[in-house]
Amino acid sequence: MSRFWSDIVRDLSPYVPGEQPSSANLIKLNTNENPYPPSPEALAVLGGDVGATLRLYPDPESVALKDAVAQTHGLDRSNVFVGNGSDEVLALAFMTFFAGKGALQFPDITYSFYPVYSRLFGVAIDRVPLTDDFRVEVDSYGTGTGGIILPNPNAPTGIALPRDEIERLLKAVPDRLLLVDEAYVDFGCESAVELIPRYENLLVVQTLSKSHSLAGLRVGFALGQPELIAGLDRVKNSFNSYPVDRIAERVAIAALLDEAYFRTCCDKIVATREWTAAQLSELGFEVLPSRANFIFAHHPAISAIRLFEQLRERNILVRHFEQKRIDRHLRITIGTDAEMQQLTAVLSELVGER
Amino acid sequence: MSRFWSDIVRDLSPYVPGEQPSSANLIKLNTNENPYPPSPEALAVLGGDVGATLRLYPDPESVALKDAVAQTHGLDRSNVFVGNGSDEVLALAFMTFFAGKGALQFPDITYSFYPVYSRLFGVAIDRVPLTDDFRVEVDSYGTGTGGIILPNPNAPTGIALPRDEIERLLKAVPDRLLLVDEAYVDFGCESAVELIPRYENLLVVQTLSKSHSLAGLRVGFALGQPELIAGLDRVKNSFNSYPVDRIAERVAIAALLDEAYFRTCCDKIVATREWTAAQLSELGFEVLPSRANFIFAHHPAISAIRLFEQLRERNILVRHFEQKRIDRHLRITIGTDAEMQQLTAVLSELVGER
Repeated sequence: MSRFWSDIVRDLSPYVPGEQPSSANLIKLNTNENPYPPSPEALAVLGGDVGATLRLYPDPESVALKDAVAQTHGLDRSNVFVGNGSDEVLALAFMTFFAGKGALQFPDITYSFYPVYSRLFGVAIDRVPLTDDFRVEVDSYGTGTGGIILPNPNAPTGIALPRDEIERLLKAVPDRLLLVDEAYVDFGCESAVELIPRYENLLVVQTLSKSHSLAGLRVGFALGQPELIAGLDRVKNSFNSYPVDRIAERVAIAALLDEAYFRTCCDKIVATREWTAAQLSELGFEVLPSRANFIFAHHPAISAIRLFEQLRERNILVRHFEQKRIDRHLRITIGTDAEMQQLTAVLSELVGER
Repeated sequence: MSRFWSDIVRDLSPYVPGEQPSSANLIKLNTNENPYPPSPEALAVLGGDVGATLRLYPDPESVALKDAVAQTHGLDRSNVFVGNGSDEVLALAFMTFFAGKGALQFPDITYSFYPVYSRLFGVAIDRVPLTDDFRVEVDSYGTGTGGIILPNPNAPTGIALPRDEIERLLKAVPDRLLLVDEAYVDFGCESAVELIPRYENLLVVQTLSKSHSLAGLRVGFALGQPELIAGLDRVKNSFNSYPVDRIAERVAIAALLDEAYFRTCCDKIVATREWTAAQLSELGFEVLPSRANFIFAHHPAISAIRLFEQLRERNILVRHFEQKRIDRHLRITIGTDAEMQQLTAVLSELVGER
């Protein structure tokens, strides 16, 4: 029981699935699985032996995946919660920590799913304005009684807060949960994970979608002290016992443990980002300082929506948000060097035409 | 807008993910995906080309999977909702249709996740007793103002309702949503799916976990008239944009379309079930008439918990529920013929020892 749990969580009696034993020598007639393998057509989609156990439920606790996450972050299994993408992890965190509490604070310009979750779970919200140069000012979050969500780096700005700013906020609000959404942290931002042992009001959410190239697999996780994780587990076990499937678990573990490849890809993206930002600056764009795998930029003399459309006509898809304060900006994901060369060539042409 | 939607659904403004274009000729810099493939170690878990697109998000609408479900059930894509296992589909259905309505009715002996969801989403419940011989009496559900859930066949009894009983109930409660949970329908029970075009208050939930041997993959679906499906979509898009991953979608489609294999496996399980039930009857067990891939049985002279433990000592795992009315029963999944022969041999020995 943690003081950060919502009333919903306190009263739950989660579903108890049938035992999933680790011994292979059992005749397992306890969870209504099918004794025959899936269709050969289904197995043909996969290779190797990965389909052989698909007839059986996954481990509802995802122990092997939690251990891989814990190992790569220097934490214990009891510090790890895993789910079907970080979007699901965030949704469950809203139910676990924010429902029925005071107004939730987050930046006025941020990931647009936060107000959606808030509405779904009846959470009042208090949007805290970014500064004029789109920075999070942590002192603005010192008042209030509900939780706080800060994406770090923020989206769609890409701007990061240093870890000591996060720590300053944690100290200022010891009775409020601070959820740091680190979906883009691996591209040069300082993670708050190392603060977890010292702050019981810190929950960090990460995903394999971006830095591990696994958006199509749907695996995300939360890290925090064991009481926070226990609250998430109670809600998850009252919602869906098995959110991470057998294949996703195996693929995710392999990706997590290949740290050298992960670092190499992140380094390449960071280098490409810096090159792209420099090119855009030369073309007259104002580019926010990004620590993410995207840049947020605007050109003082050209309409963003016009640029968006012109890029689209040339088969280049970027993102434009119809939202106050940022409707003159474009968010551009960092692709390969070749893709970014093509982008900057097209932008150079479009800026020149003006 | 449907009168069956909960107030939660009416007020939602779901999250809008970045466009996922179908053209392959685009430079896609709009959804912050990674331009590089996942780790070779991760791809080595899989075979063929299935890992090649894992760096990209799945289709948030799962159109190809919905089309496969629609095709195999003689419905339209607009009649289909898909999710991360039927447990997730049920959880989203609770939010969409049951939250904030009158007391939800379901049998006193049934799938034990229903009261858990009810608690999570604050839904009052009205447990309707099964008859003394464990049958659902649909006339007992005629009163009340909230929704109704009936698993058909029921679990853990395995007893099925004929389709015309379901239809009689649909007619009796035109203003209340009836959710028929058909997790086990493919083992000889009449499905309510063909009633969907005629009843706007019917939602049918099915899963690939049992009859398609894909418990480890996490794919379930709901079928109903388009307004019901639209309500589920609004909640899903406020919770998790991409619950079905790229691999799960492909494997599920292949399994759905291989109907011959599916029928063969179901037929084998039904034959094994009938053989097992006959053997157990000969040993003095009372076996409920099952239309599922499990049987529910008790021996008048032997304690169920004792049998459970003795089977466990012999490496056979079955399920026992510590619950009033059924604590003298065992639920036994139908395995292969060889497994069931081993089970009946052990049971014969245990009954003989008595």
